[in-house]
Amino acid sequence: MGKNRLEAFSDGVIAIIITIMVLELKAPHGADLTALASVLPVFCSYVLSFVYVGIFWNNHHHLLTASTVVDGRVLWANLHLLFWLSLVPFTTAWMGENDFAPLTVAMYGVILFMSAIAYTLLEKALIVCNPRDAVITVALAKERKSYASVALYLLAIFTAFQHVWISFIIYSLVAVLWFLPERRIEALFKR
Amino acid sequence: MGKNRLEAFSDGVIAIIITIMVLELKAPHGADLTALASVLPVFCSYVLSFVYVGIFWNNHHHLLTASTVVDGRVLWANLHLLFWLSLVPFTTAWMGENDFAPLTVAMYGVILFMSAIAYTLLEKALIVCNPRDAVITVALAKERKSYASVALYLLAIFTAFQHVWISFIIYSLVAVLWFLPERRIEALFKR
Amino acid sequence: MGKNRLEAFSDGVIAIIITIMVLELKAPHGADLTALASVLPVFCSYVLSFVYVGIFWNNHHHLLTASTVVDGRVLWANLHLLFWLSLVPFTTAWMGENDFAPLTVAMYGVILFMSAIAYTLLEKALIVCNPRDAVITVALAKERKSYASVALYLLAIFTAFQHVWISFIIYSLVAVLWFLPERRIEALFKR
Amino acid sequence: MGKNRLEAFSDGVIAIIITIMVLELKAPHGADLTALASVLPVFCSYVLSFVYVGIFWNNHHHLLTASTVVDGRVLWANLHLLFWLSLVPFTTAWMGENDFAPLTVAMYGVILFMSAIAYTLLEKALIVCNPRDAVITVALAKERKSYASVALYLLAIFTAFQHVWISFIIYSLVAVLWFLPERRIEALFKR
Repeated sequence: MGKNRLEAFSDGVIAIIITIMVLELKAPHGADLTALASVLPVFCSYVLSFVYVGIFWNNHHHLLTASTVVDGRVLWANLHLLFWLSLVPFTTAWMGENDFAPLTVAMYGVILFMSAIAYTLLEKALIVCNPRDAVITVALAKERKSYASVALYLLAIFTAFQHVWISFIIYSLVAVLWFLPERRIEALFKR
Repeated sequence: MGKNRLEAFSDGVIAIIITIMVLELKAPHGADLTALASVLPVFCSYVLSFVYVGIFWNNHHHLLTASTVVDGRVLWANLHLLFWLSLVPFTTAWMGENDFAPLTVAMYGVILFMSAIAYTLLEKALIVCNPRDAVITVALAKERKSYASVALYLLAIFTAFQHVWISFIIYSLVAVLWFLPERRIEALFKR
Repeated sequence: MGKNRLEAFSDGVIAIIITIMVLELKAPHGADLTALASVLPVFCSYVLSFVYVGIFWNNHHHLLTASTVVDGRVLWANLHLLFWLSLVPFTTAWMGENDFAPLTVAMYGVILFMSAIAYTLLEKALIVCNPRDAVITVALAKERKSYASVALYLLAIFTAFQHVWISFIIYSLVAVLWFLPERRIEALFKR
Repeated sequence: MGKNRLEAFSDGVIAIIITIMVLELKAPHGADLTALASVLPVFCSYVLSFVYVGIFWNNHHHLLTASTVVDGRVLWANLHLLFWLSLVPFTTAWMGENDFAPLTVAMYGVILFMSAIAYTLLEKALIVCNPRDAVITVALAKERKSYASVALYLLAIFTAFQHVWISFIIYSLVAVLWFLPERRIEALFKR
């Protein structure tokens, strides 16, 4: 079974997820700076989520470029990942509209945590399915980053109930961690 | 006439259907657990519908992988299927927002029933169009499951007016039925 | 310049147009038959528009299958068509929410009329760009249908102010006209 | 790393951006000409934004047709461009719903300005990645237009606070500038 349609479907879903978040950015009723400032918290959570969904798309792209075929298990592991990612706009809006209340910030971490777990499961399903492909190298190259992210998300869920801003520093830190270019993976695909 | 654009268009529509459902998951106004609990019924109906749309996409994927060409009849049979699937978000929201009232749960079954019928018509149109392809084998391999699903949907429509939870058990049962891997179809495409 | 990305982008836009219309189908507040009946006019206009957007997608598909290349003029002619089609959800919602008031029904015809004109312009741009391809045969095979549709849309715009139901009969008639299989075009692509 | 998925993902996001703007065109509550006239400002800003997003898509299409490969930097430069474009629907709605108040019109220019900068960064990333491809020729052919646009956007941001209609003339002028066919680029791809 070819991977093209899986990629196309995932691209469609992730493109919609990344774009509908901006629908939550409701145009404010006034036309002055105060009105604009009122959408600032929602805007900040939008930026963070845009970067996160972008990171997941990037990693998904690398992972599937390194794979050749998919099977039924991969299809479902992929849908499972898309399910958790599809909840990002909900939790982004909830967080932004409630001025980053502790529970909403923790919930944001829960969704990121579950997405990271789902991504790892997709990696495993792809490795089983493509044992001789570069997919395992891609996965291993990012292994430490993945474990660190999962641990940091967990930490952020708990710190949200003490100091919300610590959770935010953690979320931003993880984003920066993934944003930095990964020389090793890039090198893999350059021929 | 090639099948690529039919696949791409269907992927687009199904990706949107599966994602816009989450738009119904409006961020609650409070930021505590009570507020979060208030979206629980809508969330549950979202999960069920996500799984169902995922199943339809999976089956659609298998069916078209096994086909080579499409004709005008297939294009319309496909649009007919997409029409019924496009009503899933509406009925999902209606059900979730009315705490699973009998009529809404029955209506959910009606849409699943019509989608299943539309899927069968698409199968038949593809078999006529690709008589020598594996599409007939794929369809036959799932024939019993298809008949059972249609019968169970019908049953669930009626039980909704007696005991809503029986309908839910039926809907979940059908989902599990399709979720389980189909060794035979998988085997077909492994070379 | 290849046509693949033009097709992919058009598929994306048309897929969104056909699907966001259902977002207008707001889940009614009650859970009984009266509540369900209240969405009936919006539902009817949804069905009509779904069929119309489906027809445009079908024709677009045939036209581009018969073409080989695209140029800058085609890109803009295509965006022009997508612009008018993108207004279909707006006019569909306006018509459905105002119980098919004369002006809304006439406006619906205006959008269909402009879409048909835009489609003809796209045809012309593709013929100029692919003078030796089958695109001219496809266009000619549908020429009479196209002229009839444009004339009937114009008629329906005017009858809307006298008897709304006449406009509806005309809209349905045009839809049926396009829905019927076109043996000639099909034959063209069968080898 | 191939460019196909980058194109598909960008097409998806841009298709959604161009289409969700029409969701802001809420069906007015009345069914007469006054009601229709009330959506006129939102409609005008929709037309302008549709043309602008269309221009960006067109340029993106040309740029990637002229490239062969992409790397991690291109992926992020592309996401950066999509981020600013994704804010177009927000600023379009804000401008249309506030009858083109100065700040909203200036903000519209800021988003266009940032999108143009992001586009230039994407160009640079693609040139680094495809040093021997036609991408540099495409970029150079449009270089003067790009610089003029950026300067004009900046000007429009400032004129918005004096005379809103000057900004609009500037926005329309830039659109016309890009809308005109570019013989040189077209010639490049004709073989």
